[in-house]
Amino acid sequence: MRRKEFAVEEAQEVEAFLKEMSFGFLGTVGEDGWSRVTPLNFAYDGQNFYFHGSLAGEKMKHLAHDPRVSFTVAKEYAIIPSYFTDPNLACPASAFFKSVMVRGRAEKVQDPEEKATALTLFMEKLQPEGGYDPIRADDPQYTGQLKSVALFKIVPETISAKFKFGQNMNERKFSGVMDGLQERNLPLDPETIELMKKFCPRHA
Amino acid sequence: MRRKEFAVEEAQEVEAFLKEMSFGFLGTVGEDGWSRVTPLNFAYDGQNFYFHGSLAGEKMKHLAHDPRVSFTVAKEYAIIPSYFTDPNLACPASAFFKSVMVRGRAEKVQDPEEKATALTLFMEKLQPEGGYDPIRADDPQYTGQLKSVALFKIVPETISAKFKFGQNMNERKFSGVMDGLQERNLPLDPETIELMKKFCPRHA
Repeated sequence: MRRKEFAVEEAQEVEAFLKEMSFGFLGTVGEDGWSRVTPLNFAYDGQNFYFHGSLAGEKMKHLAHDPRVSFTVAKEYAIIPSYFTDPNLACPASAFFKSVMVRGRAEKVQDPEEKATALTLFMEKLQPEGGYDPIRADDPQYTGQLKSVALFKIVPETISAKFKFGQNMNERKFSGVMDGLQERNLPLDPETIELMKKFCPRHA
Repeated sequence: MRRKEFAVEEAQEVEAFLKEMSFGFLGTVGEDGWSRVTPLNFAYDGQNFYFHGSLAGEKMKHLAHDPRVSFTVAKEYAIIPSYFTDPNLACPASAFFKSVMVRGRAEKVQDPEEKATALTLFMEKLQPEGGYDPIRADDPQYTGQLKSVALFKIVPETISAKFKFGQNMNERKFSGVMDGLQERNLPLDPETIELMKKFCPRHA
């Protein structure tokens, strides 16, 4: 969180965003010192992040080597063309987005009960319409799968958010972007306008 | 690239995907050994990746400490609910996506001519409709900005891709997903069906 005007203090905004987004990007570091960025589906219970995967593969080697991970979730709302605010220069071209960055430690979940609870959280998020038998550790049709799936939880040490919707713009530029988005009217533009209003209280 | 059946050999598929996607996730490692995953807009000229930013901030500290970076671009096409292929178990729930992972070295671009060329590439990608004066190193309205912008290129050492569209499914499950997507018909579902056909030649 480098720029103060982008800080999003409201925990509920961050939580709503994390519940809306189906996937994020896990940063790990290998023995050779190289980082790896793995896209993955995740669930968030308001405290920890959960993800699963196969036991093979580089990501798992990284986690065994060093459990310290970063995890970033981001959504781009709008590319802001330079001509919304300047008729000549390309420099004002920008993008509005939400991003949340997490730093924490990845722990392997071993307990079948905890695994069942976390995978239920996953299903409730990604398949809210249901259509499957409840995942229970004592249900024999799930016992084998619960044992073999590699499930991790990230216990966050810090969570920071950057919601960039023109907070750093002066009145003239802010209005230029508002007008430009209104006229352009791409699918996410109306929502972007609402977010600009929401996060820029002086313009609301 | 762990699973052979997901390998996408076709360089032009990867290139088209990288030209379509406006942002990716940069993995860097700090002095303390923690990774950081930063979402950023990028341009790709068929050889190198370019991104820019402010000189302040943690990402720049990481790059000064260690230029070895990873860079991942991913797009989720479809959440595949378990009931497309199984009436009881939650386990078959999955997701179809494209992802490209790059490993390379980040180099600071200093030459104003090269900066102008890379930023033009950026603009042509993110603002193809134009609406700005050409970015030229000898144009006095751009000289100051070209000097002050921090521009990096990632010179890739490896690029790997994973396009997951049911290549590992048997005939019965593959058809179940096809039928399910057809009926569900979310905005990306028709395109997902086409990609399933494209990448699973035995089903085409």
